[in-house]
Amino acid sequence: MKFDWPVQIYWEDTDAGGVVYHSQYLNFMERARTEFLRSLGLMQTLLKDEFGILFVVRDIQIRFKKPAKFDDALNVNTALIKVGRSLLEFEQNIYRGDEHLIAAKVDVVCIGADSFRPVSIPEKMMRLLML
Amino acid sequence: MKFDWPVQIYWEDTDAGGVVYHSQYLNFMERARTEFLRSLGLMQTLLKDEFGILFVVRDIQIRFKKPAKFDDALNVNTALIKVGRSLLEFEQNIYRGDEHLIAAKVDVVCIGADSFRPVSIPEKMMRLLML
Amino acid sequence: MKFDWPVQIYWEDTDAGGVVYHSQYLNFMERARTEFLRSLGLMQTLLKDEFGILFVVRDIQIRFKKPAKFDDALNVNTALIKVGRSLLEFEQNIYRGDEHLIAAKVDVVCIGADSFRPVSIPEKMMRLLML
Amino acid sequence: MKFDWPVQIYWEDTDAGGVVYHSQYLNFMERARTEFLRSLGLMQTLLKDEFGILFVVRDIQIRFKKPAKFDDALNVNTALIKVGRSLLEFEQNIYRGDEHLIAAKVDVVCIGADSFRPVSIPEKMMRLLML
Repeated sequence: MKFDWPVQIYWEDTDAGGVVYHSQYLNFMERARTEFLRSLGLMQTLLKDEFGILFVVRDIQIRFKKPAKFDDALNVNTALIKVGRSLLEFEQNIYRGDEHLIAAKVDVVCIGADSFRPVSIPEKMMRLLML
Repeated sequence: MKFDWPVQIYWEDTDAGGVVYHSQYLNFMERARTEFLRSLGLMQTLLKDEFGILFVVRDIQIRFKKPAKFDDALNVNTALIKVGRSLLEFEQNIYRGDEHLIAAKVDVVCIGADSFRPVSIPEKMMRLLML
Repeated sequence: MKFDWPVQIYWEDTDAGGVVYHSQYLNFMERARTEFLRSLGLMQTLLKDEFGILFVVRDIQIRFKKPAKFDDALNVNTALIKVGRSLLEFEQNIYRGDEHLIAAKVDVVCIGADSFRPVSIPEKMMRLLML
Repeated sequence: MKFDWPVQIYWEDTDAGGVVYHSQYLNFMERARTEFLRSLGLMQTLLKDEFGILFVVRDIQIRFKKPAKFDDALNVNTALIKVGRSLLEFEQNIYRGDEHLIAAKVDVVCIGADSFRPVSIPEKMMRLLML
């Protein structure tokens, strides 16, 4: 499963080096994962209300290959590469046109919204992810 | 009551114009209000647990007089100028040495943490604010 | 001149009070001003390269009427209400459907990108703003 | 070389899950690297003015072990574990008291401030790093 999500760079995303501040790319990747889940009908507000679960980031490996700048139009490509009992593994790459700016692997864990401990991904959600 | 709180500028605070991004000053002012309250023994986690209240910003008037830059050491001066039944009015000014960078007036309302509606400031807290 | 720009709320925009962190609305308003200018053909990168100018915020008056929450879809309505020699005055209002969340007045000054001092808005830009 | 830097958690750092938003830890780690360099007399503004260099993050591996919360007092421990011709490798760990919250490895590259290409770390700086 692959999913593209556009991100427009605004002043708030940049720093005095003249480029996008490095931690902002993590925000862009989370926007893209949120929209990826939404595209499958998996709104996180519903997941919390219906199943009492949240998804939290457990591991990130990220390489900053080239910097983005103010007013760039980027594309965040998101691929779900593995689904575990309570784990989702994503590959996320950010592009400006053909230029590859960011390469990342992001592991996300399903936790109880109150317990903050890992729980199984609900079956109903699992079926939508496995299509 | 006047209170000084230092703020150091890091890359995360700046933008590609080479200066501090304007909305960051609101964050600095909130840090200073949090530390002002802490200096009176009013930790917000305790206020929430003991009284079920939160403080939220209702109004801000802010003038951006001069820009701060990367690595600047700033001082946020906070004065509580009026205390109402459920309202705190602050004057906050940000300086770099003698230079006056930011002048702001910030109104903060006491609300129920669950209801999100204005409630009276607890008397115990009021006494500490009125000293 | 009125201009609407949609903003989707992500985790990054919220705080532990369960609502959007107050300074984020300033970011949303700047995104909307950037897109308003773009809709007139006034890309800020071009303004800087062609005319050597930047726009910086000088004054904000903002009332936080109601909070937005995670996953809300907002609309930022931007009206340019006055154009001075080096000043743009905006009224910006943020809505969630019919609900009025944020009311703001934002003054923006045209400055030299190097001098950081107010300069006249270029005539070519002025003509596009006055239509 | 080991270096400790305290970080206080404010509302701006948290999200609606009730914990610190994950990308904020990258900001905390950069504050700590900035202060680590400052403790050696290596102010980044001087490095840029004197040598025309910047440091940019190239790779991060980060494990989010436990979440921090509003009002937590954290400690960012920074160790410079390897110095290359144009590369600094850091291990950074974030603690709340004895609890280990974040484990990260961060690679930082020395680049020309204008060229944005890797350049050798100046000898004067190298000597201070090698002590």
